Amino acid sequence: MQIAIAQLNYHVGNFEENSSKIIAAIQKAEREGADLIVFSELAICGYPPRDFLEFEEFINECAKHIEKIAGHCKNIAAIVGAPSKNSAVRGKKLFNSAYLLSDGKIAAVVHKTLLPTYDIFDEYRYFEPNNAFKIIEFKGEKIALTICEDIWNITEKMYEFDPMEELHKLQPTLMINIAASPFSHAQYEKRQATLMANFSKYQLPLVYCNHSGAQTELIFDGASLFINKNGCITAELKSFDEDFKIINSHDNSTISIANAQHKTAAIHSALVLGIKDYFKKLGFKKALLGLSGGIDSAVVFALAVEALGAENCLGILMPSQFSSQHSIADAEALASTLGAKTHTIAIEPLFAEFSQQLSPIFMDLPFGLAEENLQARIRGTLLMAVSNKFGHILLNTTNKSEAAVGYGTLYGDMNGGLSILGDVYKTEVYELANHINRNNEIIPKNSITKAPSAELRPDQKDSDSLPDYDILDRILLQYIEMRHGPKAIIEKGYNASVVNKIIQMVNATEYKRHQSPPILRVSQKAFGSGRRMPIAAKYLQ
Amino acid sequence: MQIAIAQLNYHVGNFEENSSKIIAAIQKAEREGADLIVFSELAICGYPPRDFLEFEEFINECAKHIEKIAGHCKNIAAIVGAPSKNSAVRGKKLFNSAYLLSDGKIAAVVHKTLLPTYDIFDEYRYFEPNNAFKIIEFKGEKIALTICEDIWNITEKMYEFDPMEELHKLQPTLMINIAASPFSHAQYEKRQATLMANFSKYQLPLVYCNHSGAQTELIFDGASLFINKNGCITAELKSFDEDFKIINSHDNSTISIANAQHKTAAIHSALVLGIKDYFKKLGFKKALLGLSGGIDSAVVFALAVEALGAENCLGILMPSQFSSQHSIADAEALASTLGAKTHTIAIEPLFAEFSQQLSPIFMDLPFGLAEENLQARIRGTLLMAVSNKFGHILLNTTNKSEAAVGYGTLYGDMNGGLSILGDVYKTEVYELANHINRNNEIIPKNSITKAPSAELRPDQKDSDSLPDYDILDRILLQYIEMRHGPKAIIEKGYNASVVNKIIQMVNATEYKRHQSPPILRVSQKAFGSGRRMPIAAKYLQ
Repeated sequence: MQIAIAQLNYHVGNFEENSSKIIAAIQKAEREGADLIVFSELAICGYPPRDFLEFEEFINECAKHIEKIAGHCKNIAAIVGAPSKNSAVRGKKLFNSAYLLSDGKIAAVVHKTLLPTYDIFDEYRYFEPNNAFKIIEFKGEKIALTICEDIWNITEKMYEFDPMEELHKLQPTLMINIAASPFSHAQYEKRQATLMANFSKYQLPLVYCNHSGAQTELIFDGASLFINKNGCITAELKSFDEDFKIINSHDNSTISIANAQHKTAAIHSALVLGIKDYFKKLGFKKALLGLSGGIDSAVVFALAVEALGAENCLGILMPSQFSSQHSIADAEALASTLGAKTHTIAIEPLFAEFSQQLSPIFMDLPFGLAEENLQARIRGTLLMAVSNKFGHILLNTTNKSEAAVGYGTLYGDMNGGLSILGDVYKTEVYELANHINRNNEIIPKNSITKAPSAELRPDQKDSDSLPDYDILDRILLQYIEMRHGPKAIIEKGYNASVVNKIIQMVNATEYKRHQSPPILRVSQKAFGSGRRMPIAAKYLQ
Repeated sequence: MQIAIAQLNYHVGNFEENSSKIIAAIQKAEREGADLIVFSELAICGYPPRDFLEFEEFINECAKHIEKIAGHCKNIAAIVGAPSKNSAVRGKKLFNSAYLLSDGKIAAVVHKTLLPTYDIFDEYRYFEPNNAFKIIEFKGEKIALTICEDIWNITEKMYEFDPMEELHKLQPTLMINIAASPFSHAQYEKRQATLMANFSKYQLPLVYCNHSGAQTELIFDGASLFINKNGCITAELKSFDEDFKIINSHDNSTISIANAQHKTAAIHSALVLGIKDYFKKLGFKKALLGLSGGIDSAVVFALAVEALGAENCLGILMPSQFSSQHSIADAEALASTLGAKTHTIAIEPLFAEFSQQLSPIFMDLPFGLAEENLQARIRGTLLMAVSNKFGHILLNTTNKSEAAVGYGTLYGDMNGGLSILGDVYKTEVYELANHINRNNEIIPKNSITKAPSAELRPDQKDSDSLPDYDILDRILLQYIEMRHGPKAIIEKGYNASVVNKIIQMVNATEYKRHQSPPILRVSQKAFGSGRRMPIAAKYLQ
């Protein structure tokens, strides 16, 4: 059987656009002789629809568009992901389903059994798990049709029950899995291992269709594939883009074309896609950001120019008396290399005016944190003024190391519509900068090599108040990604007082991250909806 | 049997404080002749511990404190909520459990069966559901011991399976339910109806022990109670405070002391508790806020003074050229009545300085949204400067109607550590103001009666860009609390273009609310962790 894999970039809630894309792909597959075309999980409404799923009119809209698409499936069949209503009196009101559309109508509906409810996933919030198993018979194939998580209970056993084991008892000839599997830099390998483990266990060819495109903070990297009866990956679709391929379910090749993703290159592509889709899906074109001459804003500027074009990116330099001359020069050199426009606004007159207005309250108290934050907030206010005046979205340039320890000013440098580097540790920002400079020097060498500083008081260095970033990042990785507590981290040989201080800083600054912009997720544990911590708590602080 | 109900205010992660409180209550109950003392759900670690549950060291700390408390249960038994480890290879790693501590050790452990995973609840994220049922036999009673949600599948059938039905087959003589049931203004009645429905169905006395106290945005109102064998509520513990009562499980009274909660009075008490506990649990004493002379900041100021004392509350007046003279007079009158301090900082010089610095970029473009927002951001920056300098927490004064339609400035009047009114519609703010004034005029009558205005341009009125609040709030209630779509709302007789415009405004401003401070939850559907909407989506906008 000829099966088309349609890896598309959906827009949550944009039913007209999603179904038009689906119908266009069906028509193309039909023209190119496919018997069946496969779309990804919840393709109709985009993934994740979140609490829109609690609105009956939203669910009805899904049903209406499934019907419409079915009308285009007369000479070809399609498998499309969409929610379906649970008619039982008890239990959640929906299933997360895969529809087989054939002969112009809904020929079969299969429900998802394993509902991921961890990290960024909330599926049990909405869906009832499936508990009835059936095989889809179509043109001589007996298809074990599953949805994303259904085939993931294989290398780690997270669930009591295994749907693929049940389906296997019904003697299928082919596995099809439709997915919405978000990117992290470890995910590509993990996903390929999981898909291969399914092949190894069941010895059946596997068609895997994933989402591509970003939905606010979640980036879906695509990389759909086909594993043939010999266990060879004989087709792989693009990473970080839409794609379309037709495979033959009886393919007998013995040559595998499996790729590997390079971590930094993948993060680079993911962030560019994340920026591009955030703007496109909100209907914006222009970005602006504060350029400090430091590495973080330089990397964000370069990524934004790649995603949106230099003509749509504006850098604002806002030097103070504490800014070094080379910071201004570095920022200007970067903008010139990128071909993007800048404006410069000195903040000293504004700082002076604030100081004067506040002096009846502040009296003669010495310069301190309030004054450092004030500079950051003047900058944040200037950036938002320009953004509001001309319709730019402000890009946030905070990195994950800073976000973790709360080294940033709320309503100041924490401002922005989207955080580009909030899931990228400082040491990884250096890797990204070097990757961006791989062919020629885009980011000035000086921005990369100088000691990091917020430049909010004379001769300030990040290392005055933080451990070196290579130590900091390794401890943060243990605590944030690996969920190790202080005892376990200290046992690995890290300095106890450093570990305790860092964890204390992380736990004491949840209130700041709660008000952070959405952060493009590139790791297995990003700040945001995948990490839910109490605020007014007292643990390890 | 004499059973003590200990309704305590726990602090998430503060094991020393929580276990000290628990031990003190055990000693008191023992002195007063109780056989058994009951504490609430996850009492050991406080509710909700959220992702701290994913840290093994946190779980070990829970276990350590359960052991310590067991040592105090030699002449009395205790039922205490805490997580326990699931030893099975598959499934979630924890159970949400109730421990029976007796004879100085853990005598039994019962797990929660129904795991709420909707609104603010994420229990299936962490816990495996129980599927083995047993009765706890103690001093002649056969106890059906359940945890919160376990007895809620009775008026609405949300779950396939019912644990109380299973336990009932084992012929218990008494029901005990330990809970962490958060407040909303509809919850008291709903909870009492649910508890009475359990009595009616099983004809058994019921001991119900709830949390009291606020955990960031969630307010637990207590109101634990005992329903005796005749179906009479013969004991009810305080609302919005800690309490302790001993009941006799064989109580034979025929007089019920059931109370009712008055909606506005309950919201008032809940907000005061919410402020008090946020400060106490973060270790802060002092609050500040911007006083505009309008009703929202007036109500927040009055609530803050009640929660923290006038000596700890500071109001900052920041008039502009658009502020009316009576706004300043009203704000000053309020502060004087409350006995709280104020400062006044005119924002015109700062606005002029910003305008000058921005003029090379803004050129001669007319005054618009950017300039309106700039005023709000100057105010937000001034408030944060004072907050940083003297250690106040800034209270946010945005109401739910404004938050819903995005009528507020990010990094301006949306600033704050905690939103006090973000779950209170404007029409309910008026009710609160009148309630605060029930005995004498605290909030100036003029702040209540004048037409609402943001005073960001000449003669601005909220009603220029929004429908009247009584219409707006009724439509918002349908869309937000009741999850009705536009078709259903219009069918109820509301103007179609008004409904569509309001829903469009709500959906288009998710990005703003994403960066909102935590909002004290007083309704059944508050903005925040209980309402999870996509940002870069396109639905009904």
